[in-house]
Amino acid sequence: MPHIDLEEHLPGITSLLEYRRDSAEPIRNLTQLLMRGASTLTEGERELIATVVSHGNQCRFCTAAHASVTNSLLGECETVEAIKQDIETAPVTEKMKALLSIASLVQKSGKLVTSESVGRAKSAGATDLEIHDTVLIAALFSLYNRYVDGLATNMPKDESYFKNLTERLTTQGYRRNPGGYDHLKEVVNLDKP
Amino acid sequence: MPHIDLEEHLPGITSLLEYRRDSAEPIRNLTQLLMRGASTLTEGERELIATVVSHGNQCRFCTAAHASVTNSLLGECETVEAIKQDIETAPVTEKMKALLSIASLVQKSGKLVTSESVGRAKSAGATDLEIHDTVLIAALFSLYNRYVDGLATNMPKDESYFKNLTERLTTQGYRRNPGGYDHLKEVVNLDKP
Repeated sequence: MPHIDLEEHLPGITSLLEYRRDSAEPIRNLTQLLMRGASTLTEGERELIATVVSHGNQCRFCTAAHASVTNSLLGECETVEAIKQDIETAPVTEKMKALLSIASLVQKSGKLVTSESVGRAKSAGATDLEIHDTVLIAALFSLYNRYVDGLATNMPKDESYFKNLTERLTTQGYRRNPGGYDHLKEVVNLDKP
Repeated sequence: MPHIDLEEHLPGITSLLEYRRDSAEPIRNLTQLLMRGASTLTEGERELIATVVSHGNQCRFCTAAHASVTNSLLGECETVEAIKQDIETAPVTEKMKALLSIASLVQKSGKLVTSESVGRAKSAGATDLEIHDTVLIAALFSLYNRYVDGLATNMPKDESYFKNLTERLTTQGYRRNPGGYDHLKEVVNLDKP
């Protein structure tokens, strides 16, 4: 049960972004810019960073959501599963291994990122901006994971929630659905026992 | 030395917010809203939450900055020093002890916040919105601390930097200085050896 009075039919971050829409707006804008804005990292690569951080923080809602979005963007499920086990042996480029390792350090503490971990990324071709964005995305999901779990938000009762969320995040991005989320009530039957 | 090429004369978060101004804007807007917007928590109480989280993450830049801002808003330095030692014996209300304890848990992991820690805050008179804002402020500074330390930003070479920053954050808030930060070059001589 959530620690505060949130709308019953909305799970995870959705319930919080609707609880306080004025603070939700800049959070949505930052996420849209970092995750869907112009970048030399693909959307799949950026979602992989979000997944690694959420998995490291054991945030069930965010891990399920961003693993699903990553799988959809990559068109396969093997990479996310492999990354959850061991970044070093996962089927990603050396540059992504270095960036995901940095993200994984940031998840624990910014102070753990060393010149060596950044040097490895640069040697593998990562630009300053890619390193910056990796750190900021990892920091942003450190915020999300704490927000979602710190207020004990609900997991969706119906797994189809993540399918619908993935459809929305891959086609429309992170901005607020102009019609709100009342439609979810019908789509995923979250408020049924 | 910072991990990426940042402007020499700008320390800490300032160098990052200038490095990528488009991502800085929603971060600034969220901070302005949470820290300076309408709230039943005073600005000093909200800055104290930022200080507790930054201190817990051992982020030197953010701790120095927000301790200084809190001291300025409270008109004394004892509370911040006491809070750094032990929230329970610090000279703050029972409600603030409960909220700062929640912030301290969120700093480590959102999953550590229990019904008991939230119940204590509610018994002491905290509203749902105050609990929400405490968690989100703690999550936001978990982002800031990782951003600042994950890219190894510089500490200011001159202590007067924090005095000037405090003056700005207490009188103008968190939005971008319309004139930018070139003036800091002269004011605090950060680029002198």
